Amino acid sequence: MIFFDNASTTKADPLCLDIIKKYCFDSYYNPSAQYHNSVEVGNDLKRARQNILRLLNGDGQFVFTSSGTESDNLALLGTPKKKGSRIIVSKAEHPSVMKVANELAQRGFELVLADVDGCGMVDFEKFKPLVTEDTALISVMHVNNETGGINDIKKLVSYAKSVNKRIIFHSDGVQALGKIKTDMAELGVDLYSVSAHKLHSIKGCGGLYVKKGVSVQPVIFGGGQEMGVRSSTENIPAIMCFEAVCNKILPSIDKYSSEINQLKQYIIDSLPQDGSVIKISCQGSPFILSLALRSVRGEVMLHALEKHGIMLATGSACSSSKPAKGWKTEYLPEEYKNGIIRLSFCHENDIPQAEYFINKLNLEYSELIKYAK
Amino acid sequence: MIFFDNASTTKADPLCLDIIKKYCFDSYYNPSAQYHNSVEVGNDLKRARQNILRLLNGDGQFVFTSSGTESDNLALLGTPKKKGSRIIVSKAEHPSVMKVANELAQRGFELVLADVDGCGMVDFEKFKPLVTEDTALISVMHVNNETGGINDIKKLVSYAKSVNKRIIFHSDGVQALGKIKTDMAELGVDLYSVSAHKLHSIKGCGGLYVKKGVSVQPVIFGGGQEMGVRSSTENIPAIMCFEAVCNKILPSIDKYSSEINQLKQYIIDSLPQDGSVIKISCQGSPFILSLALRSVRGEVMLHALEKHGIMLATGSACSSSKPAKGWKTEYLPEEYKNGIIRLSFCHENDIPQAEYFINKLNLEYSELIKYAK
Repeated sequence: MIFFDNASTTKADPLCLDIIKKYCFDSYYNPSAQYHNSVEVGNDLKRARQNILRLLNGDGQFVFTSSGTESDNLALLGTPKKKGSRIIVSKAEHPSVMKVANELAQRGFELVLADVDGCGMVDFEKFKPLVTEDTALISVMHVNNETGGINDIKKLVSYAKSVNKRIIFHSDGVQALGKIKTDMAELGVDLYSVSAHKLHSIKGCGGLYVKKGVSVQPVIFGGGQEMGVRSSTENIPAIMCFEAVCNKILPSIDKYSSEINQLKQYIIDSLPQDGSVIKISCQGSPFILSLALRSVRGEVMLHALEKHGIMLATGSACSSSKPAKGWKTEYLPEEYKNGIIRLSFCHENDIPQAEYFINKLNLEYSELIKYAK
Repeated sequence: MIFFDNASTTKADPLCLDIIKKYCFDSYYNPSAQYHNSVEVGNDLKRARQNILRLLNGDGQFVFTSSGTESDNLALLGTPKKKGSRIIVSKAEHPSVMKVANELAQRGFELVLADVDGCGMVDFEKFKPLVTEDTALISVMHVNNETGGINDIKKLVSYAKSVNKRIIFHSDGVQALGKIKTDMAELGVDLYSVSAHKLHSIKGCGGLYVKKGVSVQPVIFGGGQEMGVRSSTENIPAIMCFEAVCNKILPSIDKYSSEINQLKQYIIDSLPQDGSVIKISCQGSPFILSLALRSVRGEVMLHALEKHGIMLATGSACSSSKPAKGWKTEYLPEEYKNGIIRLSFCHENDIPQAEYFINKLNLEYSELIKYAK
């Protein structure tokens, strides 16, 4: 079995098992209770928060949420902003940002979409004139979930702050965490979303980095957990798994990244030279590679490869609704537009898997192309 | 170790372990992906949803969320309602309802609080005149989390619908599920919130029952999961644990309830006759018992009992902020007002534990009262 769909979700790291056992069956206490055992759990929670903040090189707070999507919602909905003010998001945002931005437009904010290239990366020259004095919020993803393209967040933040230093800059870092460097001080972002299950931790945990001095209003109201920003009994087992996985993976990004880059390069170098399969991905995260097949549909290839035990995605697989892929297909020749497949890797993937994939891709392509209209 | 704080959270049932292992390390796939393995996970999700709906005897939908708090937020914020219309909630609601109601008041809705008695139960005669033709939403908890008092939801729903059948009636059933009968058809509610970790499942999962024909708008926007009502990759391990625990516990409520009722009665019957400790709890859930100590502070007793390995709560322990307990202390004599402790049970508690508790309570009380002012 070859799992090349790690951008949609990942297998939990084995180290999660002991943590789950501890916090589900032994130290299962509510950190808000008053007895010693629960206070200890509360201390574990504080340590996890500080630890993740340190690994992100952040100076503010880290709010645990239930998912990357919830983190994006908290960032966009929770940022205090004057009615009617401008909100800029890139055209390539994940639905967890784009749908919230559309909701804000309905609530009376002026939504402006920033143009992107065929890799989903913001066009800086077209971005600049969009940033106005009355812009309240900008949201641009760090790593594109379909192409792996990396936005130059530092440059975008720096420009935005030069226009108006009170602009809040959010970045969706869900596909960046543990894959490329995610240094909050260097990026200069005010808000940054991450998700645990995209990085070999268990589902049910995400987080929002909030820079020192930046204020976020709650989206979910209640008992006042998470510094009043996100009420609900904290999902302690998932938070503790997330901390442990961050401890393991974040300091080893260079190693993993270089290994996976070789794997990605191997696949790119092994693609047929006749143009039947071309790569879409550009300079970016080694962990994502999108390919386009000439005259063969992506989902047909997906099911063909599945018979060989290979799992991958067509567009973005982390959404129930098909994402609008206008920006991605715009630059593709017509006969490739319906043939997009996305491969997304993790540190457990290796070259023999890539080799196997290429063999089966060529085999299936040569079969399927016979039925092409 | 005696855990009498099961209303704040519970130890996960051992059956959760195999389910966690399966869905975190083996079938960890995203149910929105397109290959067979993920479609199978999607089918498991559908089955869990239908199963829980059947166990609740509901005819509509069951939306999985991340917590009871989120479910309450989805119910109150997500119910479509005309600006300025009336919202009624009981004075005894958990912060996960009360804080949302306050937020709605700030957003221009007319918030009306329904009076309750010393057990937190809605006073029906005082409730009736509050329900007006322009009332949009009513939220009254099923079982009170501090006293165990059970509201007559069926009666309240029936009256509200007689005034205006379009009124949406929500009930927070977090302390009711698995403790007393939770039959949606019989209660007649439109929306009903539950939480998994209060019932021996793992943290990170809640749910909102939505009656057929009732519409709920999302609070969290994104990929469109959960019938478009709650975006985020579904927390499959937690959902599957929740289904399994519901399967185990819900059909056995009568048995567990009768056992725990004996335990509760044993404690009540064993309380000293001199008025040093009195019970607050009224007719209600066997699983919650609040006591009031004369001239000894609740938190002092909590820490004294902790030395003997007994864990319990003072007010509600499932919130970071102290709940306003006005309605609960109003009917208490002055010298008991600061002496409230809450015991909350689960099917694993037994009479020997109750016996041990009573011994230690008496022992510590006789010591602590010496220092009473």
